[in-house]
Amino acid sequence: MKAARFHGPKDIRIEQIPEPQLHPGAVAIDIAWCGICGTDLHEYLEGPIFIPPHGHPHPLTHEQEPVTMGHEFSGIVTALGEGVTGLSVGDHVVVEPYFVCGECRQCRAGNYQLCVKMGFIGLAGGGGGLSEKIVVDHRWVHPVGDIPLDEAALIEPLSVGHHAFVRSEAKPGDVALVTGAGPIGLLLAAVLKAQGLTVIISEVTEARKDKARTTGVADHVIDPSQEDLPARVRQLTGGNGADVGFECTSVNAALDQLFDAIKPAGVIVNVSIWGKPATIDMQKLVLKEIDLRGTIAYVRDHPATIKLVQEGKIDLKPFITARIGLDDLVEDGFGTLIHHKDTAVKILVHP
Amino acid sequence: MKAARFHGPKDIRIEQIPEPQLHPGAVAIDIAWCGICGTDLHEYLEGPIFIPPHGHPHPLTHEQEPVTMGHEFSGIVTALGEGVTGLSVGDHVVVEPYFVCGECRQCRAGNYQLCVKMGFIGLAGGGGGLSEKIVVDHRWVHPVGDIPLDEAALIEPLSVGHHAFVRSEAKPGDVALVTGAGPIGLLLAAVLKAQGLTVIISEVTEARKDKARTTGVADHVIDPSQEDLPARVRQLTGGNGADVGFECTSVNAALDQLFDAIKPAGVIVNVSIWGKPATIDMQKLVLKEIDLRGTIAYVRDHPATIKLVQEGKIDLKPFITARIGLDDLVEDGFGTLIHHKDTAVKILVHP
Repeated sequence: MKAARFHGPKDIRIEQIPEPQLHPGAVAIDIAWCGICGTDLHEYLEGPIFIPPHGHPHPLTHEQEPVTMGHEFSGIVTALGEGVTGLSVGDHVVVEPYFVCGECRQCRAGNYQLCVKMGFIGLAGGGGGLSEKIVVDHRWVHPVGDIPLDEAALIEPLSVGHHAFVRSEAKPGDVALVTGAGPIGLLLAAVLKAQGLTVIISEVTEARKDKARTTGVADHVIDPSQEDLPARVRQLTGGNGADVGFECTSVNAALDQLFDAIKPAGVIVNVSIWGKPATIDMQKLVLKEIDLRGTIAYVRDHPATIKLVQEGKIDLKPFITARIGLDDLVEDGFGTLIHHKDTAVKILVHP
Repeated sequence: MKAARFHGPKDIRIEQIPEPQLHPGAVAIDIAWCGICGTDLHEYLEGPIFIPPHGHPHPLTHEQEPVTMGHEFSGIVTALGEGVTGLSVGDHVVVEPYFVCGECRQCRAGNYQLCVKMGFIGLAGGGGGLSEKIVVDHRWVHPVGDIPLDEAALIEPLSVGHHAFVRSEAKPGDVALVTGAGPIGLLLAAVLKAQGLTVIISEVTEARKDKARTTGVADHVIDPSQEDLPARVRQLTGGNGADVGFECTSVNAALDQLFDAIKPAGVIVNVSIWGKPATIDMQKLVLKEIDLRGTIAYVRDHPATIKLVQEGKIDLKPFITARIGLDDLVEDGFGTLIHHKDTAVKILVHP
């Protein structure tokens, strides 16, 4: 079958590899659509980052580069391994793309997203969504009912947003400030709206400001290069400040503004991946008793996330900005994300 | 009466001022002992910081420099204003030294420590513990029963430690790592021990390491300049890392080590006051889903803190390293804290 495999930076090849074999406890899936993640782009440009380099196989998959890429995918069940129940051939599904050890303290405490050996399908080995077929442990397979398979490919990044929401402990009626309207910022905002929050998005690029407006995920879109963001947020909240903040830019100025725009005793969740250290005014953390929280991926978030889409509380269609074939992955996929990153939200690949 | 008043940096004068007048709802107290806080030292060296400078009176006290200093004090009730119940003349008491507006959202939500106009007795005006007498609103007066009055003067900084403990949400049996064995680090450690935690203290100076050992507040004292602190903490916790961390140094290297020494999904409470921005490796915050929390002063912590001392769970005597008279405040008080800061824990002043 065809698969997109990482051989090194700027060396992702579409090649023929053997089909994966079904085994007890596993599920065979024909992949329908796979989204390209910012992580995939980082691997393409500067990898291997999460991908196990040659000579350093992943402790759980025992694989190393070249590995098949893609972790944001949907598909149709084609066969069930021995002992698998609760799924049927023909089911439309998504995959929570984890490898975890099941033995470390975090796994035993239920925090499998913090497993000491954690790896992702599509990065650590075990196949990936940027191929025709995959076989995964049934634990990670979530049926999506009648959600269209193209939209279902966005369940994975939407679950990232859902987990960030859970980490914030925000509640309906709260006011959230999201810095950055990239793919994760927008999908997180969609979760927040669906949960009954008022959403303020700060964004500087025109295309992303437009997207924040046209997708309906923001109650207010503020350009911090043109307006005083903390002052505007205070104005919109009766002088109080936002209840929760979500940092989705990895830009220090945005983090600084969150500390000013958040209410005393507020929570800031850092969702973005930082390539450099952040500088923080600890006096604001102290005098306002702010909680700054990290969030990574998802843990038991998929069912609730799928339900939000099934109930019509989130419409994923506006976030799909292109559909391409696997052969066009590098040129039309990564190429678009590099040269037109502000207009592209989610590019889906059909293998 | 005599009072120590701040007139400017390195200009604290012991002078005669009028006695405060009792009014309805207030309590008149003869001050027994007053501790010198690090904040007082900062004001002496570089103030006015929290003290309202000339021309900028505090919004609640309407006072400006010169103000009477001292906020860590104990005393004996000498008279009760009209309408005050629950206290008697002769009671031994301590004071939670706040001025708050009672009207802002934080006050209304019960978070009076985050009041937008918050000021401290002994800094913002309203008299101070470094004088013979004071009159304060009965709301802030806490009886201490038979706790000796010298030890009772340490209830205020001990409440800072108690509040940091509450902010951490730590529970009995947890392992805490406290960076820094200055006065607040030591008193916080005493609270943690009293709450049934295992306490690891990291400290570099010999005198403070000794104090951490001889006061009995630490189960382990580690010198991070001589040992690999995160590795030792992992070793002491079966590879897991500490459950909670408390930053009490305002040294960036200590904060960095906390991020390495804390378990995944752990909590770090920043207790120290930083004069400069902190640099944080956000990848550790993210990938370990760490909560970094600010804590300031106390809110409803005094009764529980007093109870810990009354029940004998905390012995405050070892933290009193000197007793001086008010006339010797500058030379023997601030002078000792400047030149012998590692051996001095709490210097008490008897006015």
